[in-house]
Amino acid sequence: MPDEIKIGAYLLERLVQLGTQSIQGVPGDFNMGFLDLIEDHAALAWIGNSNELNAAYAADGYARVKRTVAAVVTTFGVGELSALNGIAGSFSERLPVVHIVGVPSTAAQGAHSLLHHTLGDGRFSAFENMSREISADSAILKAKQGAGEAIDRILVTAMKTARPVYLALPTDLVHATIPSEALGTPLDYSADENDADAEQYVLNVAQKHIADAQSAVILVDACAARHGCIAETNELITTSGLPVFATPMGKAIVDEDHAQYGGIYVGNLTSEPIKRVVEQADVLITVGSLKSDFNSGNFSYRTPKARTIELHSDYTTIGYSHYPRIGMKTLLPKLSAILAKDGERRLAETKRIVPKFENVLPDDASATITQEWLWPRMGQFLHAHDQVIVETGTSSFGMLEARLPAQTRWVSQVLWGSIGWSVGATLGVALAARELHLGRTHLFVGDGSLQLTVQEIGTMIKHALTPYLFVLNNDGYEIERQIHGPQRSYNDIPAYDHSLLLDCLGTDKFHSDAQSHKGDAKRSRKQYYRVESKSELDALLKDEEFNRPDRIRLIEIVMQRGDAPKALKRQAEATGQANKYE
Amino acid sequence: MPDEIKIGAYLLERLVQLGTQSIQGVPGDFNMGFLDLIEDHAALAWIGNSNELNAAYAADGYARVKRTVAAVVTTFGVGELSALNGIAGSFSERLPVVHIVGVPSTAAQGAHSLLHHTLGDGRFSAFENMSREISADSAILKAKQGAGEAIDRILVTAMKTARPVYLALPTDLVHATIPSEALGTPLDYSADENDADAEQYVLNVAQKHIADAQSAVILVDACAARHGCIAETNELITTSGLPVFATPMGKAIVDEDHAQYGGIYVGNLTSEPIKRVVEQADVLITVGSLKSDFNSGNFSYRTPKARTIELHSDYTTIGYSHYPRIGMKTLLPKLSAILAKDGERRLAETKRIVPKFENVLPDDASATITQEWLWPRMGQFLHAHDQVIVETGTSSFGMLEARLPAQTRWVSQVLWGSIGWSVGATLGVALAARELHLGRTHLFVGDGSLQLTVQEIGTMIKHALTPYLFVLNNDGYEIERQIHGPQRSYNDIPAYDHSLLLDCLGTDKFHSDAQSHKGDAKRSRKQYYRVESKSELDALLKDEEFNRPDRIRLIEIVMQRGDAPKALKRQAEATGQANKYE
Repeated sequence: MPDEIKIGAYLLERLVQLGTQSIQGVPGDFNMGFLDLIEDHAALAWIGNSNELNAAYAADGYARVKRTVAAVVTTFGVGELSALNGIAGSFSERLPVVHIVGVPSTAAQGAHSLLHHTLGDGRFSAFENMSREISADSAILKAKQGAGEAIDRILVTAMKTARPVYLALPTDLVHATIPSEALGTPLDYSADENDADAEQYVLNVAQKHIADAQSAVILVDACAARHGCIAETNELITTSGLPVFATPMGKAIVDEDHAQYGGIYVGNLTSEPIKRVVEQADVLITVGSLKSDFNSGNFSYRTPKARTIELHSDYTTIGYSHYPRIGMKTLLPKLSAILAKDGERRLAETKRIVPKFENVLPDDASATITQEWLWPRMGQFLHAHDQVIVETGTSSFGMLEARLPAQTRWVSQVLWGSIGWSVGATLGVALAARELHLGRTHLFVGDGSLQLTVQEIGTMIKHALTPYLFVLNNDGYEIERQIHGPQRSYNDIPAYDHSLLLDCLGTDKFHSDAQSHKGDAKRSRKQYYRVESKSELDALLKDEEFNRPDRIRLIEIVMQRGDAPKALKRQAEATGQANKYE
Repeated sequence: MPDEIKIGAYLLERLVQLGTQSIQGVPGDFNMGFLDLIEDHAALAWIGNSNELNAAYAADGYARVKRTVAAVVTTFGVGELSALNGIAGSFSERLPVVHIVGVPSTAAQGAHSLLHHTLGDGRFSAFENMSREISADSAILKAKQGAGEAIDRILVTAMKTARPVYLALPTDLVHATIPSEALGTPLDYSADENDADAEQYVLNVAQKHIADAQSAVILVDACAARHGCIAETNELITTSGLPVFATPMGKAIVDEDHAQYGGIYVGNLTSEPIKRVVEQADVLITVGSLKSDFNSGNFSYRTPKARTIELHSDYTTIGYSHYPRIGMKTLLPKLSAILAKDGERRLAETKRIVPKFENVLPDDASATITQEWLWPRMGQFLHAHDQVIVETGTSSFGMLEARLPAQTRWVSQVLWGSIGWSVGATLGVALAARELHLGRTHLFVGDGSLQLTVQEIGTMIKHALTPYLFVLNNDGYEIERQIHGPQRSYNDIPAYDHSLLLDCLGTDKFHSDAQSHKGDAKRSRKQYYRVESKSELDALLKDEEFNRPDRIRLIEIVMQRGDAPKALKRQAEATGQANKYE
């Protein structure tokens, strides 16, 4: 590597070092000089999304599956503001995303010129102020001096906090050069070390707490994955022999076919057998807990704080005792070592008491595809290493009840809950899965949510991705209807002809081999299906050819208005109560 | 009217009083109690957009044509952030829009609950902070006391400043009641009166300035329309007899077939005959000037400030003299009166020197549809009272060169310039045109920009709107290619099959009369056309049936990569220079 490197290229090298291979975004006149560098980089792919919100959603999905920082590039003002909802979702749900914004030259900004894409009042800081509310850190580059250090700082912050960061890259600095020397040392984003004495004290307290208990249970939540503790969490489970459950946001962090795994705990929305084991345990150990309303059955845990050990990325609590700056990354292995000695005895007990978690189809002779039938059937259809993206709606609640195969990556947005997110996220997930050589990618989305971001299917086709897009057609916004206004027309949507979508959003132009076999469905890269009955869907899911992910598929599943998963019905009732319009 | 009224209903009455009939937005669990009131209101239509960005764009378009405040309703966090780019555009381009956000109950906010749609850190003020950067005023309702006054205040601000305002409406306050008495008095948003002595002083200076001059010219710009001075501006023109020109943002505020009108002035991008008259005038009177880069030929006016009189909504300048708080609304009629006495003499001179502005087709025998041919041909196709929406791209530059018929409403976004805006805006424009019984609505958009917001066509179909959607298919982002990277793949887009779009985004479900005649094109409410040659397009534009706006039409116009209007080519060169990546 030469001694000097362009600032834009420096940034790209850091992203490559962190494992980023795909960059999301939309071109604009203030970022195209940077896009030149991306397009010319051998190790990077420019995705070119259909709009900036979809790009941010795709980055969010990419970060979830790739488990590293995702990048999204937009242009000053118009572009960056369109992405904010997606970036805020990554902040809320804790995903490392770097939002790189191409901004006017430092000279034009200094002169407060009345440029296009500005507010017309000379304020060039308004947009960075807006992003600051939803970023863990920002770097507003003003000069080449210190640019490399600023880039390094925000990328480390993104990785350590699992949150978005913001970078303003002026047109005149993209190609300005800085020393490349720092690139010789990879970024260090490992978790801060715990203070040894304090950590030992916490371990002693925890040991005493558990030793006094007849029973204990582990509850795995989102931040176990977000803060890179999946291996440590699984080690804790295996060595301790304890029963383990997951929250909605923590689903599939532990393999759901694990002998100690009993299913999903979500407060009073939980099925009785699981509720009993979790709520009667003398000690509850939570890993990476994130108790939002939808992740906790509307704050209805019946697990006394006095009996709870909470392990977080940057603090620990035992009962009512709070231990700041004692993080789980290094604490978990030590806790595992302590729990190991009683592991075998506990494992035998665990096997006796943990409920079986299986995909059981309801005994229902009707042809209609019901929510109650659909999700366990889908659980049976999935393979190990598949990706499952569920939209905030009937899917995210329904699929909770399905047992997923080992190594499934579960992608949902329970806390932020932005409708339409899943379609953009699917693009990012499918890209990450291809890069990591994982299995198939499956999206479950309602006909309502699909419409917000539908054009991103065109980007999937452009990149020859082959996800399964299961569209639940129940004639409108069903989750909204469950919460309020079941007969209101504001929950209606335009009626799409889903059979035309794939052909409309992507001709075969980009796939010349397919083009020469036009009309030959077997050789086509796209396929649409519509199923109206259990037997039709069942036959399709069993079809061998259908199971090969060799093309993009859109499967329209016709379902009934008013049908919803049990958990959603109960959650909707609680939400309706909380909103209490009167 | 009863003595007490729900806060939500109070807001709606104020909107109705201001002339609002359509409300844009997307349902969410924090706003549905408010949507009930909209749906039940006899004088209001809930539009129900496909996503929040499109909703904000539609509100922007609606405000432009309806010439009053537009309303967009979103839900806390996820919904409101998706709308920000659209709202910022209305701030930049000066349109009154009220962004009404359904937010959690005051109790939930006070408890900093970890609710869905939050950032997960208890900060409930983050989103209102973000909106504050792009709002003229905000009302964050916390109690019913003062709610009516706060609503009145922000609506008056929106109308007086021609800028967006933000309203946070908690679920528990929507149906809380307040006194209705204030509704008996309509809101007063008339411009502030000028100080009489100061105004007379300014008039004296202006009179002297003009009396000394051999020649004078009027230049009409955006803020003449934004601040409700269209009639006053036209009066100035007619009584003064002076030559008049418009900027790109001021196009069609004065009828383009007016005897004194000479065309568009845009600095050094202007054609020679216009440039000569404007730049050689002894006095230039600008009305509502907004000198942004794209509106001024990249700041290339050759009109000395010493010879310029600038009339603005809240100040006036004459030469280098600045007069704060002397607004044009009341100054214009007095200036007209002064200029009237020399009007006839000046009119004769004006007719002699003002260039003819006509739609002249180039002498070009080739079949290819060129930019040079397309725009004057489109100018010929338009009727008086039609609406013309042009996307930031080849359309907004190309259509500048067409002469529009009288009373055309010209809708473009020259300053903010967000790609995709025009499709959402078209929905709002078509709604406003229907309410005002105006003529046809025409969108001119490129195939690239269309993809960002394409789903809003479904909303148009749902509401049985019948715009003409002219899609210029030139295989990618042509404006970007003109600025940078003409051969770069980042300026490529997914290849749509435009012939399927209308059928895909709207079945005839909502139009039962059409459904019974399926396959009968004459009775269908949707029609697609593709034209590849001048003669095909010419024949279509002459077709009588095609000219009747009785269905929604998508006309794909096949054009060449690399072809661009002259003004865009010159602007792109200047922009590329300003960005200078190196």
